[in-house]
Amino acid sequence: MNFDRRMQAHLDLTEHALRAYLPKERLAQQRIVEAMEYSLLAGGKRVRPVLMLEFCRVSGGEERLVLPLAAALEMIHTYSLIHDDLPCMDNDDLRRGRPTSHRVFGEAMATLAGDALLNYAAETALGADGPDYLDPALRLRAVCELFGAAGVYGMIGGQVLDMERENRALSLDQVLETHRLKTGALICAAARIGVICAGASDELLEAATEYAQKIGLVFQIVDDVLDCSGSAQQLGKQTGSDARSGKTTFVTLLGEQGAMERARELTDEAKQALAPFDDASFLCEFADRLLVRQR
Amino acid sequence: MNFDRRMQAHLDLTEHALRAYLPKERLAQQRIVEAMEYSLLAGGKRVRPVLMLEFCRVSGGEERLVLPLAAALEMIHTYSLIHDDLPCMDNDDLRRGRPTSHRVFGEAMATLAGDALLNYAAETALGADGPDYLDPALRLRAVCELFGAAGVYGMIGGQVLDMERENRALSLDQVLETHRLKTGALICAAARIGVICAGASDELLEAATEYAQKIGLVFQIVDDVLDCSGSAQQLGKQTGSDARSGKTTFVTLLGEQGAMERARELTDEAKQALAPFDDASFLCEFADRLLVRQR
Repeated sequence: MNFDRRMQAHLDLTEHALRAYLPKERLAQQRIVEAMEYSLLAGGKRVRPVLMLEFCRVSGGEERLVLPLAAALEMIHTYSLIHDDLPCMDNDDLRRGRPTSHRVFGEAMATLAGDALLNYAAETALGADGPDYLDPALRLRAVCELFGAAGVYGMIGGQVLDMERENRALSLDQVLETHRLKTGALICAAARIGVICAGASDELLEAATEYAQKIGLVFQIVDDVLDCSGSAQQLGKQTGSDARSGKTTFVTLLGEQGAMERARELTDEAKQALAPFDDASFLCEFADRLLVRQR
Repeated sequence: MNFDRRMQAHLDLTEHALRAYLPKERLAQQRIVEAMEYSLLAGGKRVRPVLMLEFCRVSGGEERLVLPLAAALEMIHTYSLIHDDLPCMDNDDLRRGRPTSHRVFGEAMATLAGDALLNYAAETALGADGPDYLDPALRLRAVCELFGAAGVYGMIGGQVLDMERENRALSLDQVLETHRLKTGALICAAARIGVICAGASDELLEAATEYAQKIGLVFQIVDDVLDCSGSAQQLGKQTGSDARSGKTTFVTLLGEQGAMERARELTDEAKQALAPFDDASFLCEFADRLLVRQR
């Protein structure tokens, strides 16, 4: 199967799962479900679920077994965007080309929609209990991995560092530390959970971790470059926000050319880390495309 | 063991567990841990953990086995208070006799502290994995119960109803529906998880559910009465907020006397529901004391 067809298959599975797991009965509190759907089904790039599905596949696992975890991970990513966009955080009006949650539903409902998606991620990851589903011990391990990466030791910790370090001159190490937590941890968890749910070896788990850490950084570097040079129309969100908020980024530290040079090196290293996998062609191409993405 | 000594034992176990499960190493993102601690260790009444521990005990289970779940439940309760107090929600300055989280840490950090506590509840409930710990399948069931009660089908759903129904005349059924979700669901989950983790019968589970549903309502009715008649000093939070926000409460529907009469009936019914338990004396006294509480 070529890259584009496999990508489309992963995306179709993901979109289907996200819709399938959301509440379907009509509730008295329907407005919160509408707010959850508005942000979750806004057509993100689905980088994390795609990585999880592909790592499960190349580790010899059945993709359908990780679907609840892939959906849960995307719910966590989405809640973090809703809360990040709030007036008390980044105060953004635009996300994925549409008004942000609080612009549509109001601040209180957007706060609750974020809370609800985080909570629903736990319900989804824990609850999909068919007869063929993962062994409970394996499932517990995968859900632990997910929430460990999302919390104070991972994404939320990174958000805190990012916030506290605004308007301060930072070293490259400090910027790396922030992004390792803020965006790296969930991307890493996506890859690792794919391998874990396939019941694969520690060697594959380590290879997946290294690949994910490197492309997680590439993702962030390209984000920084696009924030500098891209247009709001291209990105579907406001640009130039790093400069406005006085953030030290890979671009301010290394320049646009230097940052892209570093991203290219990391991409090569990420691809080399895949050596223990028999069928790494999709993941190699995936890394290459992250490097040249325009949004 | 008399009521007060057993209550103190449950409270000691709870406080110890809450401290023990919080991150202990010093992190670069330490400020978020301080914000989590500030709200979590502010000396709440710990109604939910106490109920869980006691229901586990009277169902023949070991209390230490539910401690991670009891701590997780209190983390969820605490995050909901932090977010409820935010300027975009109830905009409260005082909670448990101290300035609210956003007054101390700022709105952005308070939002993240709430998120972090909800996420950490999942980490705590899932992760405490000693050799004597609960069987994975039982633990998954208990954690499902917890997050099911906390989300759109439970507490968050109730918060949404509460918010959307402000400044509208409501029927008693609508007020009951809101509180069944907003405060009832987590109280019910506390009792049920205690029984579930003890591996007890469906008969005990049903009895616990009925007791918890009734005292959950009593808790809310007394809250409404105290909001009308109590002082801020007594309660450690602002009073009269229901009237200011135009809320229909049990007091506006039934009057103070009528509301307390209903609370007394519910307390009697709750105690009767405990018949299948051999040793219900603590839970009977617990219900009586909820009825006459002053804060």
